Amino acid sequence: MKFTCNRDLLAEGLSIVQKAIPNKSNYPALECVLIDVSEDLILTGSDTDLSITYQVPVMIIEEIGQTLVNAKVFCDIVRKLPDIFVTIETADNGTLVVNCGNSHFELPTINPEQYPKISFLTDSENALELPAETLKNLIKQTVFAASVDNAKMILRGVLAENSGNELRFVAIDGYRMAYKSYPSDYEEDFRIVIPAKVLSELVKIIEKSEKSVRFCFSDNQVMFYNGSFSLISNLLKGDFPDYKMLIPKSYMCVMKVKNQVFVDTIERVSLVINDDKKWFVDLTTYPDQVFICAAGENGRSHETVAADISGQEILISFNEKILTECLRAIDKEIVTVNFSSEKGPCVIAADEDNSYFILLMPVKHKSR
Amino acid sequence: MKFTCNRDLLAEGLSIVQKAIPNKSNYPALECVLIDVSEDLILTGSDTDLSITYQVPVMIIEEIGQTLVNAKVFCDIVRKLPDIFVTIETADNGTLVVNCGNSHFELPTINPEQYPKISFLTDSENALELPAETLKNLIKQTVFAASVDNAKMILRGVLAENSGNELRFVAIDGYRMAYKSYPSDYEEDFRIVIPAKVLSELVKIIEKSEKSVRFCFSDNQVMFYNGSFSLISNLLKGDFPDYKMLIPKSYMCVMKVKNQVFVDTIERVSLVINDDKKWFVDLTTYPDQVFICAAGENGRSHETVAADISGQEILISFNEKILTECLRAIDKEIVTVNFSSEKGPCVIAADEDNSYFILLMPVKHKSR
Repeated sequence: MKFTCNRDLLAEGLSIVQKAIPNKSNYPALECVLIDVSEDLILTGSDTDLSITYQVPVMIIEEIGQTLVNAKVFCDIVRKLPDIFVTIETADNGTLVVNCGNSHFELPTINPEQYPKISFLTDSENALELPAETLKNLIKQTVFAASVDNAKMILRGVLAENSGNELRFVAIDGYRMAYKSYPSDYEEDFRIVIPAKVLSELVKIIEKSEKSVRFCFSDNQVMFYNGSFSLISNLLKGDFPDYKMLIPKSYMCVMKVKNQVFVDTIERVSLVINDDKKWFVDLTTYPDQVFICAAGENGRSHETVAADISGQEILISFNEKILTECLRAIDKEIVTVNFSSEKGPCVIAADEDNSYFILLMPVKHKSR
Repeated sequence: MKFTCNRDLLAEGLSIVQKAIPNKSNYPALECVLIDVSEDLILTGSDTDLSITYQVPVMIIEEIGQTLVNAKVFCDIVRKLPDIFVTIETADNGTLVVNCGNSHFELPTINPEQYPKISFLTDSENALELPAETLKNLIKQTVFAASVDNAKMILRGVLAENSGNELRFVAIDGYRMAYKSYPSDYEEDFRIVIPAKVLSELVKIIEKSEKSVRFCFSDNQVMFYNGSFSLISNLLKGDFPDYKMLIPKSYMCVMKVKNQVFVDTIERVSLVINDDKKWFVDLTTYPDQVFICAAGENGRSHETVAADISGQEILISFNEKILTECLRAIDKEIVTVNFSSEKGPCVIAADEDNSYFILLMPVKHKSR
């Protein structure tokens, strides 16, 4: 195997496939990147649950071949190479030789036959195609609400659901749910659960890309791909909750408030809270303001924020970190908080936008 | 106690005295900032070895008094207050009340009598006065070379030595020594050892200041101060090594090289080193270039760098991290490396500058 390519394009490709490569594995081949040179240069990384391939533009291919090299060491070296052109070849003694400017490296390799067989889905007419921006929003606006609890495996995923001319992403943990929808003209209904961790990596891969992404799946796998990369992951199996059941039918109190001022005030008032498992932030609504107070071992505090409030007065408590994370996710100047009751869920949304909302459970206040 | 002051000036003062305040102490009063309002507002923080006071400009003093409040909580609150004017007072129930805009906080306090008595040195005609820039350079160019080894307490300090119309700062650990001198017209000779940790905090305090700093000491304490702050620390006691003995009298080989290129190459070549306690970087000098190579469990590598070299050829090995840290400290385009022998110390300096140098021991190469 021998080829010459551009250092920066190689480094970019490595940084993408590295997202699937474990730092430490009992199986050393999995700590490696698979370098495959035939018609093109294809890099592959995998932890067996998630696999990513990336096609790097190559300048000269002198000899085709495959090899496995430790991904971390190889990435670190490529990133620091002194010149823009790098020539990489396998030597007879089994090392990978990297030459670039005055720099010369010899790296140990592993026989590529030790790499697990990865079966990618075949591109089909049937794949769903999404603009990069749409896919990024679907992921970013929901993935943070997925559970990190190992005991609830299915909730560590994000539901992707297509029906009724809508594509919806929904994530739920014990305290909240995030819901985002887009119009869809994809004809087949489906309901699959994709690991949140995989979507977090996917969003990093497409972060700077404008290219649309194709998306197809089988009974147990999902694949995202465009001209440069393919990402394939196992799906999560199990019963994802019927999220529609969780959405309140009516609201006791509706508050519109400046989001940034509201978040800043909640964070400030909560500075007296030293343990957010034990102490909470209390909101009391009045017709034209919301009173925010907290107490903890560090002291007590309160502050009011102007708000446009209709319905009944309500006194409700939240975990400060979860409440502010949900408000920040809305990312609009004015946020609407719909309270169903003092003990029931509230729904946080941007004004006049039904496509995105977060449902949040209050906490039980110790004194009530 | 009741006063009104500017939030940002108060936050700045707190961030300075906080440098002396331990995050956790068995003695809760030491986790507090002492707020003392009489003619001025004086903040004090101390871990008993190091104490810092800072005078904050105050707008209105309505009632004098003293109190102790948890420094971390109070600093966090002040930094996030919503308005520029803040009023602070002690309430009858013993809490500290903070009012700012719509924000209201009540914080628990500790009786100020529980605070340790701190005796500051008195300002004297005899104090040494240094421009802020000079003091910053003396500290920054030496403090990194102080030991972090608890077994060598005296080497955890920086020697400040005045004699022969020169003020010198010198730090030594097991591997290297950093030396910086400035002309001095201070008449009395002295030789004191100041804890490196204290100097690191001092340099942060004066980082943005242009004001000159006065500096005086007693048998066991040193004090740095200007109009705003006073910092007092215990001195380290013990025999600081006679550093002049360590400086070679002659050199086998002298190399002038572009510093940044040299550092980048050493770092790149060393990427094959996985354990820098076990594997080192080797330099071989030739008349017009230096050959840099390394080997480790990650592979082997080499690269040459153009250099202006006189004297005998030399093959010498270094710990990569320590060598690059020393080269970076020089911070000049061209660096001169003076090799005394293959096993003896080398002296790294900027070209034509006798006021600053770093002495560095090579490591014993396994194969020699």
